[in-house]
Amino acid sequence: MSTNTAYQSLQSIFKRLNYFDHATTILGWDQMVMMPAGGVASRSETLAELSVMHHELLASDRVVELITHCESDTESLTDAEVRSVQAMREAYQDVNCLPTDLVKAQVLAGSACEHGWRSQRKANDWAGFQKNFNEVVWLAREEARVRQESADTATPYDALLDLHCRGDSSELIDRVFSELKAELPTMIDAAIERQAMAQTAAHATEATTALYPISEQTALSHALLRTLGFNFDEGRLDISAHPFSTGVRGDQRITTRYDESTYLDALLATAHETGHASYEAGLPEQWSGLPVGNASNMCIHESQSLLFEKMVTLSAPFLQHLHELIKTHLSAGTDLSFESLIQQARRVSKSYIRVEADELTYPIHVALRFDIERDLINGAIEPSHIPEAWDAAMQAGLGLSTKDNHTNGCLQDIHWTDGTFGYFPSYTMGAVNSAQLFQAVIEAHPDWQTKFAEGDIGFVRTWLSDNIWCHGCHRSSQELIQLATGSETQSKSLLTHLKSRYLDES
Amino acid sequence: MSTNTAYQSLQSIFKRLNYFDHATTILGWDQMVMMPAGGVASRSETLAELSVMHHELLASDRVVELITHCESDTESLTDAEVRSVQAMREAYQDVNCLPTDLVKAQVLAGSACEHGWRSQRKANDWAGFQKNFNEVVWLAREEARVRQESADTATPYDALLDLHCRGDSSELIDRVFSELKAELPTMIDAAIERQAMAQTAAHATEATTALYPISEQTALSHALLRTLGFNFDEGRLDISAHPFSTGVRGDQRITTRYDESTYLDALLATAHETGHASYEAGLPEQWSGLPVGNASNMCIHESQSLLFEKMVTLSAPFLQHLHELIKTHLSAGTDLSFESLIQQARRVSKSYIRVEADELTYPIHVALRFDIERDLINGAIEPSHIPEAWDAAMQAGLGLSTKDNHTNGCLQDIHWTDGTFGYFPSYTMGAVNSAQLFQAVIEAHPDWQTKFAEGDIGFVRTWLSDNIWCHGCHRSSQELIQLATGSETQSKSLLTHLKSRYLDES
Repeated sequence: MSTNTAYQSLQSIFKRLNYFDHATTILGWDQMVMMPAGGVASRSETLAELSVMHHELLASDRVVELITHCESDTESLTDAEVRSVQAMREAYQDVNCLPTDLVKAQVLAGSACEHGWRSQRKANDWAGFQKNFNEVVWLAREEARVRQESADTATPYDALLDLHCRGDSSELIDRVFSELKAELPTMIDAAIERQAMAQTAAHATEATTALYPISEQTALSHALLRTLGFNFDEGRLDISAHPFSTGVRGDQRITTRYDESTYLDALLATAHETGHASYEAGLPEQWSGLPVGNASNMCIHESQSLLFEKMVTLSAPFLQHLHELIKTHLSAGTDLSFESLIQQARRVSKSYIRVEADELTYPIHVALRFDIERDLINGAIEPSHIPEAWDAAMQAGLGLSTKDNHTNGCLQDIHWTDGTFGYFPSYTMGAVNSAQLFQAVIEAHPDWQTKFAEGDIGFVRTWLSDNIWCHGCHRSSQELIQLATGSETQSKSLLTHLKSRYLDES
Repeated sequence: MSTNTAYQSLQSIFKRLNYFDHATTILGWDQMVMMPAGGVASRSETLAELSVMHHELLASDRVVELITHCESDTESLTDAEVRSVQAMREAYQDVNCLPTDLVKAQVLAGSACEHGWRSQRKANDWAGFQKNFNEVVWLAREEARVRQESADTATPYDALLDLHCRGDSSELIDRVFSELKAELPTMIDAAIERQAMAQTAAHATEATTALYPISEQTALSHALLRTLGFNFDEGRLDISAHPFSTGVRGDQRITTRYDESTYLDALLATAHETGHASYEAGLPEQWSGLPVGNASNMCIHESQSLLFEKMVTLSAPFLQHLHELIKTHLSAGTDLSFESLIQQARRVSKSYIRVEADELTYPIHVALRFDIERDLINGAIEPSHIPEAWDAAMQAGLGLSTKDNHTNGCLQDIHWTDGTFGYFPSYTMGAVNSAQLFQAVIEAHPDWQTKFAEGDIGFVRTWLSDNIWCHGCHRSSQELIQLATGSETQSKSLLTHLKSRYLDES
């Protein structure tokens, strides 16, 4: 068999895998958005079986033989095909390097731990949680050890990081996060003081009791999405319990949730998910269905959603445009002043809860989780040390104590319960990347503020398409950032942005 | 391998096939109801590939070996398992008895013919259509010949009939339809005359210009569905271009379409689809995912939808209840008299178009299609004879000529264009079965009229569940009808019903 024939066979197999992905993506969306309660059992079985069939196909001897064949004769392939084979190898290794017994044990332990967590979190029961969690950590360490051996990463934790943040080492993340931890606490205090003074001056602290009907909020979200360039001929906006974005080629689906007592949360959630959806819609068509045509790591993916949400939508000039949209679509928004909108949309406060945090305090939440999970997987700390480490980091970063308050401390997130380690850093690496990319966009477009005020962000989309979206994962995350901005991911960009928005901007 | 082990293996394979069915069912629903236009290419590819994988699995040597093993030692299996294996054999034979080349040729010819038909119908272009259609018929005859050889049916046409109406022979259908053709023309004329006189007497012929907002119609449809026993915890009602019903275990999905100028069409479509959905929801859980757990043939399936639509919803006592629902939910319905509702809901007229026909004239449309397609497949007539045969049958049955009017004659339906022969009879066999089953229901429930007037149809559902739904396809269609009503399908039941409703009832 020629190497070209081998590559063609691989392409066919991976395209078939992609049809499974298409099915599970739409079935998953349907489950969250459309399916009646009675469908749960049958849907769960179907998704589990499709995942088994996907695994059987990807983890087959034939796949690894074909990959090895192509790897042994790269001269017969184009550079792009060589990178494509490399992405196939990564996909194969990711699912295939673990012993089946370990995977099964992890599913069981993770499922038990997550199930227990749902009541233990409410009951503030760390001791009960830790009983299950010890096993989850033990198995995750074993997974990290096996993956490190297979991928030759610097530390065991880096091997788990690869699953979500491939290309961004724990060393790089540590450097970026350390700089953020050093600068942010002072900035947070200063911003909160500044906002308090501004509010006192404006007597603008009265609570509003206005209601925003869901039909009006829906129309507003649609208007914002159209402004942000979301294509409703190739996508949908729906409602689900938690906002998310998913989709297949030509069909990007985002969700939000509405609360009649407030409109900003739903609106910013749609802006956020539009970033994810735009990235997916902009991936290179010629590599569609192959691993190399997929999006880059989660640090890049999250940078796109945060760029749309924080950099574009919350910028002062775009808020001017949004202000007009709000006044047009919300009957209770006709009297809203621009100053009130800015104040509401950019309020900084110290919160125990990550998902409620604003962009200035959010990195503190993520950095502490990164420190803990890295040390946990690398064996520097044990699960029993987590509450203390959490409390210390919250005290240092936000001046809040979580001592004996596990509900609002180390038990607040679902991620670790089923053994997902190495995902948290992507939130803040995404934020840093978004600031760095946005800086490059506006340097290339000095008239950006005029355009934003008119609701024109087409030039941002074009720049992102040319610099990020079109590459799929032909380039590593840091190659993308380097080529697009002139340097690797640096804390400076985010710090400069936050200082400008929260301490300098009038 | 023991026979029990072989049967277990078959069960696993067929359950896996069922997971494919689950995926394609939901993806198909999504395509009709939710998918944005941009998703077409990717969805079509995915559905095609899932169908290829389904076929590879079902048509494998392993499946036929296991089936043959079980068939050779039925004494080791329970009676139910023996019938289960028989249903598996039928499923295997249905997809596997045709040569691949023939299937491919049929897909190509059918697709070209259907594509051409879309413009040829509008252009009244029989000659153009026939050029493509000759090939479709030639291939269908070849398919019928091969299937007849494999299944040993009485005629080639019976082999195609088996795909949709298995268990109901063309001889039985011919007997039933001949009796209908003999009786209906006189009844139709009498009913039309009677309705004209009643209308003149009531001066009730004024056209209404009322509008019925879609939000009100939706609420009315939901109210009717709940009354008919549709469980919204295990199903949905949505909108699509053409009403249909589909679903998976615990999750039945029906659709309708609304037109602001009329409310009855959408309402009766939901009642119809509720019958299909209720049957699917009521299939035996212990056989879920296996062929023997599926619904019986389309003559039984259609009997359930028509029983809900025509027997229940259009019955005088239920219309009393529906009258209240209409007055509650439609602001333009508050002045509607019961007499007007009856008149609107039961209007008889002679129409060229099958899908616009009422229950009294509908069998004429179906019987003529049955006669033509049977003769066509069995070689008694050629495609060129169709327009003449159509015209003659329409003249005889309804006194309407379709001479040179192919648009409203033999070009009106999509069914034959892609080679679907043997499906049409199920519409009227379903109508006959629905009347026969309903007669048995009300004989067992003499107080049915009081209950219907109160919107109580629970006893109908229970009877259908016990007599039809719970059997899956453990019994043949005629066994089901025989056991439930005491005789095989007979035209008498439908004729009695129609005479009572259109000629006797005051």
